[in-house]
Amino acid sequence: MNLFQKTLAIIFAAASIATVSSVMADEQKTPEEAAIDYRKASFGMIKHHFGPMGAMVKGDKEFNAEEFAKNAEAVATLSKFPMNGFIAGSDMGETEAKDNIWSNMDDFKKKMETFQIEAASLAEIAKGGDMAAIKPQFGKVGESCKACHKEYKED
Amino acid sequence: MNLFQKTLAIIFAAASIATVSSVMADEQKTPEEAAIDYRKASFGMIKHHFGPMGAMVKGDKEFNAEEFAKNAEAVATLSKFPMNGFIAGSDMGETEAKDNIWSNMDDFKKKMETFQIEAASLAEIAKGGDMAAIKPQFGKVGESCKACHKEYKED
Repeated sequence: MNLFQKTLAIIFAAASIATVSSVMADEQKTPEEAAIDYRKASFGMIKHHFGPMGAMVKGDKEFNAEEFAKNAEAVATLSKFPMNGFIAGSDMGETEAKDNIWSNMDDFKKKMETFQIEAASLAEIAKGGDMAAIKPQFGKVGESCKACHKEYKED
Repeated sequence: MNLFQKTLAIIFAAASIATVSSVMADEQKTPEEAAIDYRKASFGMIKHHFGPMGAMVKGDKEFNAEEFAKNAEAVATLSKFPMNGFIAGSDMGETEAKDNIWSNMDDFKKKMETFQIEAASLAEIAKGGDMAAIKPQFGKVGESCKACHKEYKED
């Protein structure tokens, strides 16, 4: 082997180790790592339903009352899930939660409850299919998201 | 630069491009890629709640009726979400869904409905806190998962 071949051999060996480690990590997650994945999954799903509603409120997407109501209902239901993932010790690893969330857990829970209440209210209002009524309540849900993101989520 | 340095420079440049592409991919997902992420998130959350129930049924974890009932309720609620992610065109990319799922969509939907019904029934039975009643229904939920995984999910 010349130096070039040796270098490549080392790089490929390192890449293989990295791949194996990554696969092992997926299969052998700690409860804390699994909890982080869980809350990310729930927030991701909320975002997925939130997006189309935002586009309709802004007028970027045509208002479809039935679709809007379904998304509002989904956000209201899913809003109850992320807290399950904020378990003790899950402040390490691949998380975007700021450190201060753990010393302000009561405030965080309160903010999450506000989000749940506003989302439930939006789901109720959305059944009426009236954008004039939907718009201000959608704003309140957005504000309840932002209140938490601002304090407790890394940009 | 000698050959070793040049090789390293190329490798690091390639790594940078890969990182940038990965970040861009996250931010600019197609609706189909986003749908795949969504259904994975929902299945992951279901698994997260299913695991502790399985451990209690098997006796690997002490039976806690309240915890079991909460997990059963969560699975019943979340069972209604994965179908939202099986949108047309989401047969490509990072999916473990087999190709035959798309030509058997009616059967897949039927199997998902069976899962939803069995999960709802488990949530009801779990409220009673009687493991003798829970166990056979938990088995039915597990069977409804397996029925789909066997036909439509890559190992």
